[in-house]
Amino acid sequence: MAQAAQASSADSEFDRDTSVTLREPGVYDADLSPGWAILSAVNGGYLLAIVARALRDALPHPDPFTVTAHYLTPSKPGPAVVRTEAVRTGRTLATGQASLYQYEPDGTEVERVRVLAAYGALDSLTDDVRTSVKPPTLPPPDQCLGTEDGPAAFPGESGFAHRVVVRLDPETAGWAFGAPSGRGEVRGWFSLADHREPDPLSLLLTVDAFPPTAFDLGLMGWTPTVELTTHIRARPAPGPLRVFVTTRNLAGGHLEEDADVWDSADRLVAQSRQLARAPRGAGAPGAR
Amino acid sequence: MAQAAQASSADSEFDRDTSVTLREPGVYDADLSPGWAILSAVNGGYLLAIVARALRDALPHPDPFTVTAHYLTPSKPGPAVVRTEAVRTGRTLATGQASLYQYEPDGTEVERVRVLAAYGALDSLTDDVRTSVKPPTLPPPDQCLGTEDGPAAFPGESGFAHRVVVRLDPETAGWAFGAPSGRGEVRGWFSLADHREPDPLSLLLTVDAFPPTAFDLGLMGWTPTVELTTHIRARPAPGPLRVFVTTRNLAGGHLEEDADVWDSADRLVAQSRQLARAPRGAGAPGAR
Repeated sequence: MAQAAQASSADSEFDRDTSVTLREPGVYDADLSPGWAILSAVNGGYLLAIVARALRDALPHPDPFTVTAHYLTPSKPGPAVVRTEAVRTGRTLATGQASLYQYEPDGTEVERVRVLAAYGALDSLTDDVRTSVKPPTLPPPDQCLGTEDGPAAFPGESGFAHRVVVRLDPETAGWAFGAPSGRGEVRGWFSLADHREPDPLSLLLTVDAFPPTAFDLGLMGWTPTVELTTHIRARPAPGPLRVFVTTRNLAGGHLEEDADVWDSADRLVAQSRQLARAPRGAGAPGAR
Repeated sequence: MAQAAQASSADSEFDRDTSVTLREPGVYDADLSPGWAILSAVNGGYLLAIVARALRDALPHPDPFTVTAHYLTPSKPGPAVVRTEAVRTGRTLATGQASLYQYEPDGTEVERVRVLAAYGALDSLTDDVRTSVKPPTLPPPDQCLGTEDGPAAFPGESGFAHRVVVRLDPETAGWAFGAPSGRGEVRGWFSLADHREPDPLSLLLTVDAFPPTAFDLGLMGWTPTVELTTHIRARPAPGPLRVFVTTRNLAGGHLEEDADVWDSADRLVAQSRQLARAPRGAGAPGAR
């Protein structure tokens, strides 16, 4: 399986920047690119894609079916190592665990994220689809709002905004102009900026690429993820993705964020849920 | 913290049957009671409560905030051991991992379930509640259907049905009489049969105690859980719980199951999502 780790497309930013190199069985070197940072913090979905790529190499089945990540300490651009463990391998499903570490100046490894996941083969699944929910209705991308249309959610340099194209339904972007809807919804279009087509690994980036729903609830500020679980349900068709993120339960200084990702063929290809801390900004009911 | 492991109420079936005994630091002996089995399989939520109780003892914070379980091999009534690891401890949050093992005849340990979790203190959270969704409307319990009102979902002896009181809204129980609604919804009331009041640990049982939503989609049969993640969002008030389980995406032989648990004070106290394999029964589109 080791060749999979080297199968990066030189012309894709995502493939290049998530590449992992086998150091020894189960252990992979990686380099966290500043290109996927929001201010100084590396995006959580990007980290997840790196870990998932290492696990794809370490496990006998190719596709993440369900991936849970706990974010332990903030990641910084620079070298990292992913240590994987094959927990159990079955005929159709393999369970794996992995941790991504970075280094202290003295070389000590500090754990950034721990992941527990099950992998299978999406292409081996039956082709029955009985999805009861419908894809969100969105204005066409050119009538949606990109990062260039509003003030930055977080002032400062953010490479992430140059790697992904996120265009928000204006109905769920009022917070960018001081008028959050209060519904806790964020909807929009997603593509990689270099036009690389979506696949199961990039879907792990997509689910965590949108502005926090807390913004639409009037809570501006950092919304750190405690835990993020993503189900990858189908290989996405080429083309832009539609993403629908909702929060129903902001309480006790925490909130859940559910993201549904639809492909261009109207298939619900990914479902994620995360538990996050609500921003502690001025006026926030969750301030502590 | 070791005393917490022994704080079982002798008069509660749940507390007695989820008790764990410290063997050595981080390692706990347990005994899976046949009373929580459905046929020969031990209920997944009951297993989770045992693992969560060991983690509560091993970690410095008392309450599970988010718990992810991967079910690896079927558990059987009898001895088990839970091995825990404190992954990272912060001021308000501690991340832990645990595995429950059972024994082969030669004493070899076989892993049944692996868990990754974050613990905190529910009582230390702010008291803001901005939940936007409303609790489900249910007929009173005496107008709902219990296990005694319909054919058994799985014929045979099931101790589980004597430990929990699940009363289903008749609107979502048509499948028991050959008339599933097709909506993929199961709603109802939940209590422990011995009237023990709910707490964060018993909520881990509650989220996996209802008949599979697959039944309401017309797919009868075993629906094995691959992965189950539960967010415990508040300490539940005393009294019966209302549970609303939905499936939106039955496709490719798999489905998600989302469960919302409401307490008697109308607080959304737990939210869970699981990825499960669809039953392979005759006539099932997911049959393989």
